[in-house]
Amino acid sequence: MLVKSPLAKPFPIMPEIAGATPRVARAGYKDWGRCDLSYIALDEGTTVAGVTTQNICCSAEVDLCRANLAHGRARALVVNAGNSNAFTGQRGKDAVDAITAQVAGHLNCDASEIFVSSTGVIGVPLPIDKAQSGLRAVFDAAPCSWEDVTHTIGTTDTFAKGATASAMVDGRKVQLVGIIKGSGMIAPDMATMLGYIFTDAAVDAAFLQQMLSASNKTSFSCITVDSDTSTSDTVLAFATGKAGNTPLTSYDDAGADAFAAALNDICRQLAHLVVRDGEGAQKFIEINVSGAANDDSARRIGLAIANSPLVKTAIAGEDANWGRVVMAVGKAGEPANRDSLSISFGATQVARNGLAVAGYDEAPVAQHLKQNEIQIGVDLGIGAGRATVWTCDLTHGYISINADYRS
Amino acid sequence: MLVKSPLAKPFPIMPEIAGATPRVARAGYKDWGRCDLSYIALDEGTTVAGVTTQNICCSAEVDLCRANLAHGRARALVVNAGNSNAFTGQRGKDAVDAITAQVAGHLNCDASEIFVSSTGVIGVPLPIDKAQSGLRAVFDAAPCSWEDVTHTIGTTDTFAKGATASAMVDGRKVQLVGIIKGSGMIAPDMATMLGYIFTDAAVDAAFLQQMLSASNKTSFSCITVDSDTSTSDTVLAFATGKAGNTPLTSYDDAGADAFAAALNDICRQLAHLVVRDGEGAQKFIEINVSGAANDDSARRIGLAIANSPLVKTAIAGEDANWGRVVMAVGKAGEPANRDSLSISFGATQVARNGLAVAGYDEAPVAQHLKQNEIQIGVDLGIGAGRATVWTCDLTHGYISINADYRS
Repeated sequence: MLVKSPLAKPFPIMPEIAGATPRVARAGYKDWGRCDLSYIALDEGTTVAGVTTQNICCSAEVDLCRANLAHGRARALVVNAGNSNAFTGQRGKDAVDAITAQVAGHLNCDASEIFVSSTGVIGVPLPIDKAQSGLRAVFDAAPCSWEDVTHTIGTTDTFAKGATASAMVDGRKVQLVGIIKGSGMIAPDMATMLGYIFTDAAVDAAFLQQMLSASNKTSFSCITVDSDTSTSDTVLAFATGKAGNTPLTSYDDAGADAFAAALNDICRQLAHLVVRDGEGAQKFIEINVSGAANDDSARRIGLAIANSPLVKTAIAGEDANWGRVVMAVGKAGEPANRDSLSISFGATQVARNGLAVAGYDEAPVAQHLKQNEIQIGVDLGIGAGRATVWTCDLTHGYISINADYRS
Repeated sequence: MLVKSPLAKPFPIMPEIAGATPRVARAGYKDWGRCDLSYIALDEGTTVAGVTTQNICCSAEVDLCRANLAHGRARALVVNAGNSNAFTGQRGKDAVDAITAQVAGHLNCDASEIFVSSTGVIGVPLPIDKAQSGLRAVFDAAPCSWEDVTHTIGTTDTFAKGATASAMVDGRKVQLVGIIKGSGMIAPDMATMLGYIFTDAAVDAAFLQQMLSASNKTSFSCITVDSDTSTSDTVLAFATGKAGNTPLTSYDDAGADAFAAALNDICRQLAHLVVRDGEGAQKFIEINVSGAANDDSARRIGLAIANSPLVKTAIAGEDANWGRVVMAVGKAGEPANRDSLSISFGATQVARNGLAVAGYDEAPVAQHLKQNEIQIGVDLGIGAGRATVWTCDLTHGYISINADYRS
């Protein structure tokens, strides 16, 4: 068993979401005793938005979600853990089709309203018989908690990751809950991992997509564990409409800003939780980049630092080796000027305008690096672009987990 | 002390190169007993070519080499180990200027004919007094072997890396020797590490540059240890002309192809040796990419695989987890088609046209992965582009070396 991350957060108290009913069961995708099939039934009228991996070798499940997002309606979500069903050709597609047909038959709805994700090893077709018997079991199961679902969708995760938020919309309090899994193969290009957000707010599907895409840009797209972009990454947001507010259709609607802020908040929380469960992580690292040519450039420079094995191992070793940050900025392929570059660790400026600050004292930096939450500041000194990126350190734990994950 | 890489090769028997005289001494850049300053005097008439890092935060030494390469003449090379002098502002430049002035005074030549490299920690100015006393000592030292120089330029290297080749040019046998250092922060964007090639052939500087740039594209630019591009990477080739051949000026000259092949061979050998001394390396991995949109695309796909922490840890764990290769191809950002992608390990085809081969037997792949030389084949099935890339696995050794390298 994997040891719980030292950066773990307790699972929050999560409200029920009217119109979304979670259940879990055991399909037995791997030889384990735990539940590995999640099923969330969604009442009629639920809208959906989503962002998916940009990995070209994406799974049949990702293909399905993309196709079904076109109409923005959802009646159920199925998540399989223990097998990603990616790179399995027609047999993989057949398995997904069998799942959507069986659920649509059960709910008496169109198969295109069923969303499916799978996570686990790549290249092994999902066994259709196990999926079918798992679904039969889950239809009969009692409704469960969000925490149960979160445990059921996890693979190498060491703790259950959830977040909640609320907003006042149209005089009504709307609730949002989000759950997420993922701790390795995390370098979202557009979305990442498997993350699901449920709300009882009424939100037009196109506007929900617009808000989710915006939130994604500063949350899931700004984290990395190991620079490897998964073939199955999917984040879906479902709005059941049971709160009874007038449906939100644009940022001009009353309450839309509050809802967007709550969605943003939940995406940020979920993204941070993934980093906190990064494989082998001992330190949570925030990288603030400013003074870049533009915001996109700042994000790419932040990710170059966050993906550098040498920066990540220095932090793991609590070594104030800030020269490795200089190296990472320089290799990013983005506009930069060595002689206007400034760097800080925690509250301590270590370099300014291309060299170490006069009388640089390493003691406060060494002290900061002993914490398990690290801040690195980088100012390029050439523009107004800024971004914040989050990652974890690279430790022996990552090697141990990944040198024998499948065995 | 670092343990010698299990992938190490013995240092070859290297000929002397007429017109190039190596010496080493101890400047004491770090608190160690070993020599750390190398000095190779070059006779008048020596031409030079070079390729340097594309890292924007490059060192003053790299700036100097680039400037001096413009005229293509060289009288000496100085290499400092233990301090890279990168990101040190005016004080770093002053140190380099002091070195070139002192050597030029000693040789009675122009300071622009002196080439300098430094390697080690980033952000600490090279101490001028130590450089100056080190130079005084090295001028008085007896000439030494190429192996002595190779030990002197190393930092975290675990073995001395050299290569040799020869060619018949204009009826004369010309000799080439090459030495190189580097085992971490290896992801050459244009050149990499510190590598030096010496030949007694007479070669026009512009043509030497043309050949070196061509060789670089399929050697140093096709290796990676950890995806981190150094601030100091430099490869220089010096031709003393002492073999007495009519100077080579273009590929049309008799013997030019033979010389280019020898140069190519030596660059390839040196690049492989760096990978064999990759920090923590236990396996040497060759990745052959074919069927890509074009050769550059094939190289970028190869490097995406070679830089994937999940692929590298799978190889370290001798785990035939080929799905991680699929993932890395898909995230490369290059043209690819999931359903025409084929993958092999060693002599065994594992996947063809988007899924595992029928009756896939893991046994021969598992057997191949127990070796310390691994081949991965990837065919994109969309074009004629091909490239070969080399890397090493990612092990606990890399973490151990880099979590406390500076301390």
